[in-house]
Amino acid sequence: MYLDRIKNPSLWAKVVSAESAAQLIKDGMTVGMSGFTRAGEAKAVPMALAERARHDPVGITLITGASLGNDLDRTLGEAGVIKRRMPFQADPGLRKLINDGKVMFVDQHLSETVEMLRSGQIGPIDVAIVEAVAIKENGEIVPTTSVGNSATFALLANKIIVELNIGHSASLEGLHDIYIPTRRPYREPIPVTSPQSRAGLPFIPVDISRIAAIVITDRPDSCASVSDPDEGTAAIAGHLTEFLGYEVNKGRLGLSLAPLQAGIGSIANAVMHGFIDSRFNNLSMYSEVLQDSTFDLFDSGKLTFASGSSITLSQAKMDVLKNLERYKSRLILRPQEISNHPEVIRRLGLIAINTALEADLYGNVNSTHVSGTHMMNGVGGSGDFARNAYLSVFVTKSMAKDGRISSIVPMVTHVDHCEHDVDLIVTEHGLADLRGLAPRERAPLIIENCVDPSYRALLSDYFKDALKLGGQTPHVLDKAFFMHAAYRDSGSMLPQLAKPKAKAAVAA
Amino acid sequence: MYLDRIKNPSLWAKVVSAESAAQLIKDGMTVGMSGFTRAGEAKAVPMALAERARHDPVGITLITGASLGNDLDRTLGEAGVIKRRMPFQADPGLRKLINDGKVMFVDQHLSETVEMLRSGQIGPIDVAIVEAVAIKENGEIVPTTSVGNSATFALLANKIIVELNIGHSASLEGLHDIYIPTRRPYREPIPVTSPQSRAGLPFIPVDISRIAAIVITDRPDSCASVSDPDEGTAAIAGHLTEFLGYEVNKGRLGLSLAPLQAGIGSIANAVMHGFIDSRFNNLSMYSEVLQDSTFDLFDSGKLTFASGSSITLSQAKMDVLKNLERYKSRLILRPQEISNHPEVIRRLGLIAINTALEADLYGNVNSTHVSGTHMMNGVGGSGDFARNAYLSVFVTKSMAKDGRISSIVPMVTHVDHCEHDVDLIVTEHGLADLRGLAPRERAPLIIENCVDPSYRALLSDYFKDALKLGGQTPHVLDKAFFMHAAYRDSGSMLPQLAKPKAKAAVAA
Repeated sequence: MYLDRIKNPSLWAKVVSAESAAQLIKDGMTVGMSGFTRAGEAKAVPMALAERARHDPVGITLITGASLGNDLDRTLGEAGVIKRRMPFQADPGLRKLINDGKVMFVDQHLSETVEMLRSGQIGPIDVAIVEAVAIKENGEIVPTTSVGNSATFALLANKIIVELNIGHSASLEGLHDIYIPTRRPYREPIPVTSPQSRAGLPFIPVDISRIAAIVITDRPDSCASVSDPDEGTAAIAGHLTEFLGYEVNKGRLGLSLAPLQAGIGSIANAVMHGFIDSRFNNLSMYSEVLQDSTFDLFDSGKLTFASGSSITLSQAKMDVLKNLERYKSRLILRPQEISNHPEVIRRLGLIAINTALEADLYGNVNSTHVSGTHMMNGVGGSGDFARNAYLSVFVTKSMAKDGRISSIVPMVTHVDHCEHDVDLIVTEHGLADLRGLAPRERAPLIIENCVDPSYRALLSDYFKDALKLGGQTPHVLDKAFFMHAAYRDSGSMLPQLAKPKAKAAVAA
Repeated sequence: MYLDRIKNPSLWAKVVSAESAAQLIKDGMTVGMSGFTRAGEAKAVPMALAERARHDPVGITLITGASLGNDLDRTLGEAGVIKRRMPFQADPGLRKLINDGKVMFVDQHLSETVEMLRSGQIGPIDVAIVEAVAIKENGEIVPTTSVGNSATFALLANKIIVELNIGHSASLEGLHDIYIPTRRPYREPIPVTSPQSRAGLPFIPVDISRIAAIVITDRPDSCASVSDPDEGTAAIAGHLTEFLGYEVNKGRLGLSLAPLQAGIGSIANAVMHGFIDSRFNNLSMYSEVLQDSTFDLFDSGKLTFASGSSITLSQAKMDVLKNLERYKSRLILRPQEISNHPEVIRRLGLIAINTALEADLYGNVNSTHVSGTHMMNGVGGSGDFARNAYLSVFVTKSMAKDGRISSIVPMVTHVDHCEHDVDLIVTEHGLADLRGLAPRERAPLIIENCVDPSYRALLSDYFKDALKLGGQTPHVLDKAFFMHAAYRDSGSMLPQLAKPKAKAAVAA
C-alpha cells in the first residue's frame, strides 16, 4: 500500500496513472525533473511521455539535476521529446542526437542552473516531476536517492507531478537537507561550515495546491556500471596517496586531510578505495555523488561523514540502501547548488579529484569534448570544484584505445579547466605537481612524470620546437593538434600503431 | 615631518634609508610587496634593490597584489632581480622577459594567491614590503591607495619593511577594511552581504616586533593611462546599456541593477561612463580597481557606494585623492581576496564586465595570450568574477590593428574563460546574449551581432565547414587557427589587407 506515504488525505484524489500525469506536459514546455547520476529520477511519467509522443508529438526543454538512469535520456531523445537539454547527460543515445545537432545541449556548471532559473535568465519551469519517498501533511516532498535540482524545480514550477516510488525504503526520510539561498540582494551566507552542517529542512516545502498529480511507481534506480580497480587505477591511487602523505609530512595537511570530493567514474572510485589501506583516518567527504567507495570507506572505519547530492551504487553494493540505518547518521544529501557551491567549497578547502578526458603540456584540461567537437557527457560539477578547491587534482590513464591515444597532448582541443585551476595531474606513471610553476616548467614535468614512455619523444620534440618560438606558453600553432589529426587519419596518435589501411588512404 | 605618522616612538629608531632596508632582502628570498593596478606599491625599497643588483646580484620571487607603477616591474626585471613573478603584471619590459623565458611568470586568479600562501603551498614570505600612510600605536599598518595582498603578506612575513609614504594624504586612514578569512577547518562565512559591509579592521594588525625597517618616501603613484571614450567604446557602452534596460523591462533587474564590477582598461571604463546618461540609478560597485569612471559616477549622482581593492586614477582625476573626504563615506578598500572572493561575488550577484583579448564562435574567451603563446598581462581577477557573477559580460572592439585582426576567431588560441562562464559578448557592432544557448546556436548569433562585417564571410564559411563534421561544438581542427596563421604569415587575418611583402615571402 502507498496511502501511508501520502500523509494528507486530500492528496489521495491526485493519484493518477503515469499516462494521465504526462498529459499535463504540453509541447514547448520547460520541464524540471529529478535525477542526479542515475539516482532518484522520475521514471514512470517520462516513459509515458515518450510513449505518448509516438502518436502525439511533443517537444520540451528538459532540465534535470544531472544524468538519468533507466535509459530515460535515450528513450526521450529517440522519441523526439527532448528538444533542448541541460545541464548534464551521460547517455550514448542522447549523445548521438546532441552531436548530430538534433538536440540543443546546454552544458553547465551544476551549481549554476538553479541560479539562472530563479533569476528568470532561463525557464520558467512549467512542470516539475519529482521522485519522492513520501509526501507529508502539508504537501512537503521527501526526495529519494538524490536531491539534485528537485527542490528549486518544485518551488518554481507552475505544476508539480510527484512520482511516489514505493520501491525506495521509507527510511530515506531524514537523510536530506534542503537549503535554498535567500533572495538577492538580501542573500545571507550559506550556513554550511563543515560536511556535517545541517542548514535546512529534511523535505521540499512546496505549496500543496501546486501538486497537480501523484503517480505511484516501484521501479528501481539503475545501477552504476563501475569497472573494478585495475593495475592502472591502483597505480593512480598509489601516486596520489603517496603525494598526500608527503603533504602530511610537510605539515600542510593533517592525517584527516581535508574534505574529499571525487568525480563519478571508475578512476575516481578507485582512488577513493585507495584510502582504505592508507595511514589517513577520520576522513570526510563533501562531494556530489556518493559511490560504492564511500560506503567501503565507512565500513573500513576511515570515513566519518559524507555529504553529497546523490547515492549511486553498483549492483554489488545495492544492499546499502536496504541497510541505510547503518549509515544514515553519517550522511547528508543536499541540493546540488549547495553540494557544489563555490562558497562552501572554498570555505571547506576541499581536495577535489576529477577525471580528465585529456590534459595538455601546460595543465589545461578537457573534460567534455572528444577531438574538441563531440560531447561526451558534460562538464558536470568539475568546474565548481576545481576552481574553488584547496587542491584540484585531475586523474586519467596516460593512454586510451590500446595506446593509440595519449591522454596528454600538446594542446587540448577544448578547455573546461584552464591552467589556473589545475594543481595536480596524475596518471598511472606518476604525478605532476603544478603548484607555483610557470607553463614552461610544467611541460617537462608532465612529460617526465605523466606521459606514457611511448609518447614522450613526440611530446618532447613538440615542446622543443615550441620553445624556439618563445612565449609564456610555447606552442607551434600549426602543429598544436597534430596528434589528434594523426589519430583521425591513421587511427593512432603514435605513428608506430597507425593502421596500415588508413595510412595508405592518407598517402593516396 | 613624518614622525607624527609613526605613533609608537619605539619604532622611530627603525627608520632607515631605502638602501639599508633593501639589504634585508637576500638572494633566493620570496618577497611579498604591496601594489595593485599601479596603486599603493612600495617604491623606494624596490628601486634601491634594483640599484644594488648592479654590483651585488640578487634574485627573488616577487609576489604582489597585481600590477605595479613607477616602472618597477621593468626596472627590477631588467636588473635581474625578478626570477619568478606572480600573480599579475602589466609591464612591457617585464612582459618581454617573461615571453623570452627569462622570468618564470605564474599567472593566477587574484583571489587565490594568499590562500596558497597561507596553506604553505607556495612561499613562505621572507620579507613583506608594504606602503603605508601611517603606523599606529601597536604597529598596525594603515595602507595607502590599495590593499591588494598586503595584509596577508605582512601577517605571514618573517620581516616587514614599511614604506611610509608621506606624499599620500593622511585622510586615507579609515578607508580600508581588512578582513582575513578564519583558519580552515574552522572557517566562518565571510560577513560581507553588500558592497557597504564592513567586516574587519581599518588597518593591518601586525606583530610590532616584526617591523624590521621603516623607509620614508613621498613618491606618488603612477597615473593610469586611460584612453578617452571613442566611437567604438561608446557603441559598446550603448549596446550594454540598452540590453540592461531590456532586462529591467523584463523584470529581471531593478533600476539599480546589481553591484557592478568592471575590469581595468579603457573599454570597461567607457562602459561605466555610459551609465552616467542612463536611466539607471542608485548603482553600486563591488569591483577590484576603482577608476576614473567610479568618481564620475559618484559626481553624477548615479552611484551610491563603491567597494574595491585599489584606487587607480588618470592624471586628470588625481585631485580625487586630495578631496577624498568628499567620497570617503561611500568607499571601502578591501584585500583582493575579499574584493574578488567567489563566495561574496556569488552572494551579491554581480554584473561583471571584463575585456576579452579574443573570443571565439562558441563563447570561449582568451584574456591573456597573444597568438596563444605570448603573455600580455595576466588573467587578473577576471576569472574570479566571470565564473561567479550573476551576469558575465565580455567586451572587446571587433577588430584590432586597423582591421588586420578580428577579435572574434574560430577558436581562441588560449582559454581563460570557458564557454560556461561567458553570458554576453559585446562589440561596437552589437551584443550576443549566449544564456541558455547551445554552441551551435551561439555561433550564428556572434557572427551576426558582434563580428565586423568584413570578417563575417570568413567566419560563416568556417562555421559551415565545421557543421559538416558535426559535434556539439563544430570545428575543423586543421583550420581552427587559420586566421592566426594568416596574420602571422601575411600581417592580416583578412586576405584583402595582407601585406604584399610578407605575402611574397610566404610564396617563396
